[in-house]
Amino acid sequence: MIRVAIIGATGYTALELIKILLRHPEVEITTLTSRSEGNPHVAGIHPQLAGRIDLEMADLGPAEIGPRAEVAFSCLPHGVTATQVPKLLDAGLRVIDLSADYRLDSPEVYAQWYGQKHADPERLGKVAYGLPELFRDAIRGARLVANPGCYPTSAILPLAPLLKAGLVAPREIIVDSKSGVSGAGRTPKLTTHFPECNESVSAYNVGRHRHTPEIEQVLSKASGRAVEVVFTPHLVPMDRGILSTIYMQPTNELSEEEAISVIREFYSNEPFVRVVNHLPGTKDTLGTNFCDITARVVRGRLITISCLDNLVKGASGAAVQNFNLMFGFPETVAL
Amino acid sequence: MIRVAIIGATGYTALELIKILLRHPEVEITTLTSRSEGNPHVAGIHPQLAGRIDLEMADLGPAEIGPRAEVAFSCLPHGVTATQVPKLLDAGLRVIDLSADYRLDSPEVYAQWYGQKHADPERLGKVAYGLPELFRDAIRGARLVANPGCYPTSAILPLAPLLKAGLVAPREIIVDSKSGVSGAGRTPKLTTHFPECNESVSAYNVGRHRHTPEIEQVLSKASGRAVEVVFTPHLVPMDRGILSTIYMQPTNELSEEEAISVIREFYSNEPFVRVVNHLPGTKDTLGTNFCDITARVVRGRLITISCLDNLVKGASGAAVQNFNLMFGFPETVAL
Amino acid sequence: MIRVAIIGATGYTALELIKILLRHPEVEITTLTSRSEGNPHVAGIHPQLAGRIDLEMADLGPAEIGPRAEVAFSCLPHGVTATQVPKLLDAGLRVIDLSADYRLDSPEVYAQWYGQKHADPERLGKVAYGLPELFRDAIRGARLVANPGCYPTSAILPLAPLLKAGLVAPREIIVDSKSGVSGAGRTPKLTTHFPECNESVSAYNVGRHRHTPEIEQVLSKASGRAVEVVFTPHLVPMDRGILSTIYMQPTNELSEEEAISVIREFYSNEPFVRVVNHLPGTKDTLGTNFCDITARVVRGRLITISCLDNLVKGASGAAVQNFNLMFGFPETVAL
Amino acid sequence: MIRVAIIGATGYTALELIKILLRHPEVEITTLTSRSEGNPHVAGIHPQLAGRIDLEMADLGPAEIGPRAEVAFSCLPHGVTATQVPKLLDAGLRVIDLSADYRLDSPEVYAQWYGQKHADPERLGKVAYGLPELFRDAIRGARLVANPGCYPTSAILPLAPLLKAGLVAPREIIVDSKSGVSGAGRTPKLTTHFPECNESVSAYNVGRHRHTPEIEQVLSKASGRAVEVVFTPHLVPMDRGILSTIYMQPTNELSEEEAISVIREFYSNEPFVRVVNHLPGTKDTLGTNFCDITARVVRGRLITISCLDNLVKGASGAAVQNFNLMFGFPETVAL
Repeated sequence: MIRVAIIGATGYTALELIKILLRHPEVEITTLTSRSEGNPHVAGIHPQLAGRIDLEMADLGPAEIGPRAEVAFSCLPHGVTATQVPKLLDAGLRVIDLSADYRLDSPEVYAQWYGQKHADPERLGKVAYGLPELFRDAIRGARLVANPGCYPTSAILPLAPLLKAGLVAPREIIVDSKSGVSGAGRTPKLTTHFPECNESVSAYNVGRHRHTPEIEQVLSKASGRAVEVVFTPHLVPMDRGILSTIYMQPTNELSEEEAISVIREFYSNEPFVRVVNHLPGTKDTLGTNFCDITARVVRGRLITISCLDNLVKGASGAAVQNFNLMFGFPETVAL
Repeated sequence: MIRVAIIGATGYTALELIKILLRHPEVEITTLTSRSEGNPHVAGIHPQLAGRIDLEMADLGPAEIGPRAEVAFSCLPHGVTATQVPKLLDAGLRVIDLSADYRLDSPEVYAQWYGQKHADPERLGKVAYGLPELFRDAIRGARLVANPGCYPTSAILPLAPLLKAGLVAPREIIVDSKSGVSGAGRTPKLTTHFPECNESVSAYNVGRHRHTPEIEQVLSKASGRAVEVVFTPHLVPMDRGILSTIYMQPTNELSEEEAISVIREFYSNEPFVRVVNHLPGTKDTLGTNFCDITARVVRGRLITISCLDNLVKGASGAAVQNFNLMFGFPETVAL
Repeated sequence: MIRVAIIGATGYTALELIKILLRHPEVEITTLTSRSEGNPHVAGIHPQLAGRIDLEMADLGPAEIGPRAEVAFSCLPHGVTATQVPKLLDAGLRVIDLSADYRLDSPEVYAQWYGQKHADPERLGKVAYGLPELFRDAIRGARLVANPGCYPTSAILPLAPLLKAGLVAPREIIVDSKSGVSGAGRTPKLTTHFPECNESVSAYNVGRHRHTPEIEQVLSKASGRAVEVVFTPHLVPMDRGILSTIYMQPTNELSEEEAISVIREFYSNEPFVRVVNHLPGTKDTLGTNFCDITARVVRGRLITISCLDNLVKGASGAAVQNFNLMFGFPETVAL
Repeated sequence: MIRVAIIGATGYTALELIKILLRHPEVEITTLTSRSEGNPHVAGIHPQLAGRIDLEMADLGPAEIGPRAEVAFSCLPHGVTATQVPKLLDAGLRVIDLSADYRLDSPEVYAQWYGQKHADPERLGKVAYGLPELFRDAIRGARLVANPGCYPTSAILPLAPLLKAGLVAPREIIVDSKSGVSGAGRTPKLTTHFPECNESVSAYNVGRHRHTPEIEQVLSKASGRAVEVVFTPHLVPMDRGILSTIYMQPTNELSEEEAISVIREFYSNEPFVRVVNHLPGTKDTLGTNFCDITARVVRGRLITISCLDNLVKGASGAAVQNFNLMFGFPETVAL
């Protein structure tokens, strides 16, 4: 049994993580931390968990967490994360970080997009990026894994095979993404207040969303080309799910069948990527760790449609997939 | 043209009120107040109003509002309201109050349910209750009208004719109501955060909702009997609409047809009450000032189903209906 | 490994059943039947299942199913079911029937509520009703189990302990239920067309819903009293979930704490009933086999609030719970 | 008073049209036709209209409609429309056609995209396209107006000023559109069955949607350049609203401010186009005849975001705007 701590356990990714880990036969959740006062029972924060896990949340520091667990899943906000992760590692824990703090290689790029200095800049560039489909080997031996962003996973998976094969122009890429509201987190805000965002679709952070440099960095690394994307996220009135419609310029003429076949071949051994011929909807992946992908060619332009559950393959499912890799379990356990 | 001020214009009832009044040929909205800093343009607060009304919100007191308008629609929170309304009246304005502060007759009952002393207790019991279907004459001449709560309107309209006719037991009434989320107002809270309340139904404030004494008082007054209700509100994942399912004990055997016919007769001249034979849904009344009502008899018990749009007949539409009455316009103008 | 057949596998209960059974370590799904032409792959009907199960649907009769499975989950429509179940039993299968055909004891009551003669009337009254919390022993040895309706489970679980203890009047019960749309099945109809039922709440089949006699029969049997309920189902714009608000008349004065404590005691060993102090919402049970229950006393009347996921505890989860009992597995496996 | 007939009055565009026309002081709706049997009262088909209009639907032909109205709004399906419109014109009516039958100029293009021969090919190319912002003069005198498609309006309005000014490449245009479900009409289908499309986003008809040639034709005509678009529609779980995110390649360097200013200037006298600086959401236009537009520049590429209510500016509101133009009323009456 691997003893697990979840750091910052009040949000949606932590809730989903707990639900997945409760199905894992080799996991014991020993520790849930939060800065909530009075050590509330986890079921007081997450009523869905009543009767399923009997733990109180506690405001523990890394030194106290160290003896209680082999691994910490960190669900802290970015910024705070980079101040805690070094201490968690020092306390002997392996860490799967669900924040954005260790995804980018460059402290400068981090500062530019996140508007603050990185608290642990030396470590950047040496952290495994937790997308098993591209970086499985690095994840296996890693002590710290940076779990990918939800949008990046939906964009990188369809794009990587095409870019690696040189089939599409690396600087003519448009990623138009549609996300459910849970991606915005659990803190109430006017934009996610039900009567505001229900029955409405809107774009937000156009050209300024922080997942942009993450997508570009990972795809550049994976393909060996300098990749540039225009990324437009949209908020859609549903709880979960991301659908990314990606527009590319093929370098040479390319048929729909060829495109699908290249992607299918690339992921032929992957348990969680389903390359399909039909047009998938986010509901096909609801509550699962799958990413569904298809492709179309329209007037010479290549379009991929990809979708996933932002809280599972886009966050906590991927984190458990990484955990399984790191601890030598079959990758699909509990997923 | 009647010059209108809207006090506390940042919420949903104010927005709906503005949209209705913009269709009113005899109204000029001259003043919108709010405590927001910096006098924001109304379209900055309510983007739906862009290009439809060109006014800035201002933090004005009653003395400043007096010369600008003949009537004030007050959309302030309860508690605050009772400190402002006397000054608005003193400033020469007629007032239609959309808060709960002037609905109850008794300062003691108010204190008990609202948890605070009433700031203007002498006026209680002398205010017109703004339900034209029952109190049209009082509204016509009133200088202050207490606009009804959304749940009370949905409960009082079906119950009043049956109680007045002595057809149902006045203390065996259960009101099970289902409401859309806009009824909770515009301030973000965890309970109305999209990923919390979407795809979920829940009861809240069971037996403790503040609309209970309002329903009982108005029905007691209208029927001359001491009416008591068990009232259970529920939150439903939709923007607007209230459906109330009301269970009654007939005093004598009663058929479905008789019940429907008594209610239909009672409202035969009412422009905004539709007594129907089918089972209505809230969408039938969406965006309208109608209340739809039907009745069923099941195992000897009488059930009414009533529905309305909580922001229109349940708030701002009713307020404009009252306004029309007070200023001598046909009751349906703009509605 | 128990070999399982699912009869009528194109609907929502079958989909949910497959998803649950895929997590069951002792189950092999060998057979999916449907009358769809051309033996479509299950993933063609249920895209969510792509890559998770590799089976074609086939139009097989009981004789063909017999050798392929030890147990059949029957998801056929009522009426058809009673013509097939005898043959499935004759073919040596144990049967868990998710339709309504074997829930009622009396062919006359069946004919009255379902508008048709029962095709297998002799068997009625001898079938185990699949609510383990009340009929665990009968289920264990049964060859045929009638899986409860979704509404009945939400009503019977809170009512049974109170009625058995004689705490509430058996003929003064009102069940006001709110259900998500998946309960209406997968066949497109105007009432479940998105733009019709979205953003709307409505009552339907008031006093005429077929789950009424089921609730009454089971509660009468469980409590030894002739129970009568007024049952009003409502359609709510969400995929899943049922919340039942039940109004009762206590036989003697009763406090909230006593009521909760009686129910809690009754279910103290049950893995899937959570008696809580807070007001639960359907989302607390989403995707789980739990039924959450609480109680309130308002003006002397007792109210229970209960909720569950209509496709899990209200259908397929309960079916797997019954399966586990019938085949000697721990009751919570896969749930 | 202009007497109005609505042909094919059972769908959502007809319902919206009736609601708008009921607010029009110069309109009398005299005739509603449908092929429904038994001349149902309009409120039987559209419960929202109970008490607002007292008409029966009738199965009338053009000759019978002629004497009853000056103008017919035709809400028939495409294909059928082209067989009826010539007769309606012959019967002396002016016609506003909400179908697609008269939008395209070329019978060949029509046949290619709609999969059938056009029944009235001679008239194609001579019909006013009902987008007042571009074709006001032609609409004024027209006897037949082809009301635009919902997606085309959302795409043409932002693109026309930019293409006319030569600011963007006419063949490098991607239109990624997100629509509510009412756009799919009122006939129940699996794809619009609530539990299928709720809580899901999906693309459909990628590269094959019939609004593609309409967008291209109108923009080519308006700009004098051969315009080509990649058009990807998506289905979003909400009743109403279209948001189009359009990606363009500027011909020369272009700033956000310049782009917004060109569009704002172009529509400076238009009552129903709001060019805004913020990112609009569909809810800003809900229930209104507005189209909201803004622009962004990201990595040298120009993006416009436009939104509207598909049943108002995208259908029936535009139809009434055209009606006002045709009959000499101020363009904004009833809107």
